[in-house]
Amino acid sequence: MDDKPFVLGIDIGGQTAKSGVVNARGEVLAQTIMVSNKHQDADDFVAALASTLKKLVFDAGIEGQVRGIGVGAPNGNYYTGEIKDAPNLSWAHEKNIPFAKMLSAHMDGLPVALTNDANAAAVGEMTYGAAKGLKDFIMITLGTGVGSGIVIDGKVLYGHDGFAGELGHTCAVRGGRLCGCGKQGCLEAYCSAIGVARSAVDWLEQHPDEPSLLRLRENITSKDVYEAAKAGDKGAKEIFDFTGALLGRSFADFIAFSAPEAIVLFGGLARAREFLYEPILRSMNENVLPLWKDKVKLLFSSLSESDAAILGASALAWDL
Amino acid sequence: MDDKPFVLGIDIGGQTAKSGVVNARGEVLAQTIMVSNKHQDADDFVAALASTLKKLVFDAGIEGQVRGIGVGAPNGNYYTGEIKDAPNLSWAHEKNIPFAKMLSAHMDGLPVALTNDANAAAVGEMTYGAAKGLKDFIMITLGTGVGSGIVIDGKVLYGHDGFAGELGHTCAVRGGRLCGCGKQGCLEAYCSAIGVARSAVDWLEQHPDEPSLLRLRENITSKDVYEAAKAGDKGAKEIFDFTGALLGRSFADFIAFSAPEAIVLFGGLARAREFLYEPILRSMNENVLPLWKDKVKLLFSSLSESDAAILGASALAWDL
Repeated sequence: MDDKPFVLGIDIGGQTAKSGVVNARGEVLAQTIMVSNKHQDADDFVAALASTLKKLVFDAGIEGQVRGIGVGAPNGNYYTGEIKDAPNLSWAHEKNIPFAKMLSAHMDGLPVALTNDANAAAVGEMTYGAAKGLKDFIMITLGTGVGSGIVIDGKVLYGHDGFAGELGHTCAVRGGRLCGCGKQGCLEAYCSAIGVARSAVDWLEQHPDEPSLLRLRENITSKDVYEAAKAGDKGAKEIFDFTGALLGRSFADFIAFSAPEAIVLFGGLARAREFLYEPILRSMNENVLPLWKDKVKLLFSSLSESDAAILGASALAWDL
Repeated sequence: MDDKPFVLGIDIGGQTAKSGVVNARGEVLAQTIMVSNKHQDADDFVAALASTLKKLVFDAGIEGQVRGIGVGAPNGNYYTGEIKDAPNLSWAHEKNIPFAKMLSAHMDGLPVALTNDANAAAVGEMTYGAAKGLKDFIMITLGTGVGSGIVIDGKVLYGHDGFAGELGHTCAVRGGRLCGCGKQGCLEAYCSAIGVARSAVDWLEQHPDEPSLLRLRENITSKDVYEAAKAGDKGAKEIFDFTGALLGRSFADFIAFSAPEAIVLFGGLARAREFLYEPILRSMNENVLPLWKDKVKLLFSSLSESDAAILGASALAWDL
């Protein structure tokens, strides 16, 4: 084992794929980034990724010392190594891609483990971050979408088919907004970056007479809402209050399922901690069964986003 | 081990406690029943239970051959062996009862394992019933209340504190009916036996001009609704349609959490299978993410209710 002291961790997102070389102490020794949405098909993407990885390994001077590769990808299935119909990946849309097998073939047979990106982040957070030492927690990723990685007794919950932990598609508002998945009222339709931007548009429509910095913006993003809130904008703060209240009451239901020690928030939107923490915690404790009132911790990720995903994916590779 | 080939299984409910002698093949060789709600305090109840158990063991002619005792009780905690503030048990209301320890002391030090009644039923169903061979399923008990036992990779999910699986208190209707737990809109407030009776009262109020067999009843029970539905009553059938639709959409969210192979229904109300199966399945498949559509089985318990609970509780005792 000692002659192969490194693993590679890869985080595949809708725009970019980040790769890193990680040692056994969880240090990212080198990393690189490539686009992930310009490829004709999966073969094309995997070939490009493999050549990026080979260069990364060569530049780091660790050829022949890599133990395995861990990959986090949307709709990645740990059991089968496939990426299944990932709407955000142009080359995996409406297809089943045997990704782990394909990448291994391109990497001279190096073993490859794959899971979804939120599960990878949960493993990273448990191994190196805010969830260190926790055995039962739920990681919620607030990014373009809302993802989740559920850890039970120190292990990621994969379920019968490998797809457990789609908490972004539990119902937050019955008959509510249409979600990208085709259902109505999903948590993701309200509490993702895109959902917050939609809430901002709604707020402006519902408060035509109230001034707000957000009125100056076209194509409002969640970042605009965050910046307006920082500047003291009342409307922007109300949008975060609304978002936090929905998250908190959904979390109360998640707690009734798995009785976690903590819920850990991660992702771009989690940076708005100063505006989300209190409304989430209040709503969570108002909606949870009395036995869990004020008992479940609400934590925010302590890892940089790219590190957590690379580290989490890489952690999978140690078990190969 | 062979010199102690028997275990005792005990199912404690709000009205009665059922106890049985079980062998390694899962046969209930003898059983007995006692009231559970006439006792001054926990000491009083445990003393009465112990004397019932001793008589049961003596009558079965197996003295000295009992390996251990398994108990299923409302709010029973597997980790601590305590019954925590069980509102339906007069002697455990607003108290923490170290039940396993107390019973063991009364039974000459025989080891005692305790869990909640829904978890015990799930173990019984997995070991001997409809969930035999399943490693990932959710057991929903539709009785006076709505309970749940969640099995992941062949093991009951207890969570950080031992209280995981309170799915009856996830929110089915935002701002809906007041539940016994103090929250509003819980699944239990709609889909328990009591909830169905409340729905019947609501239905009659909302349809003042429609005839129904239920109008002839005072203090409508869920059994009345079942019998009216069997007799072809339109209102009674609509009440089951409504109940099934709420269950199905909640199940869709549970599936997004743990990706089970099946949901297994159990308890008095599950006997209304002929009126619940289709509305539940339809609503579940309408509300679940496309990847699980028509994939998750909906099963009904194949064990008699008292057997499942006794067998499930007894199964805990084999591991002692």
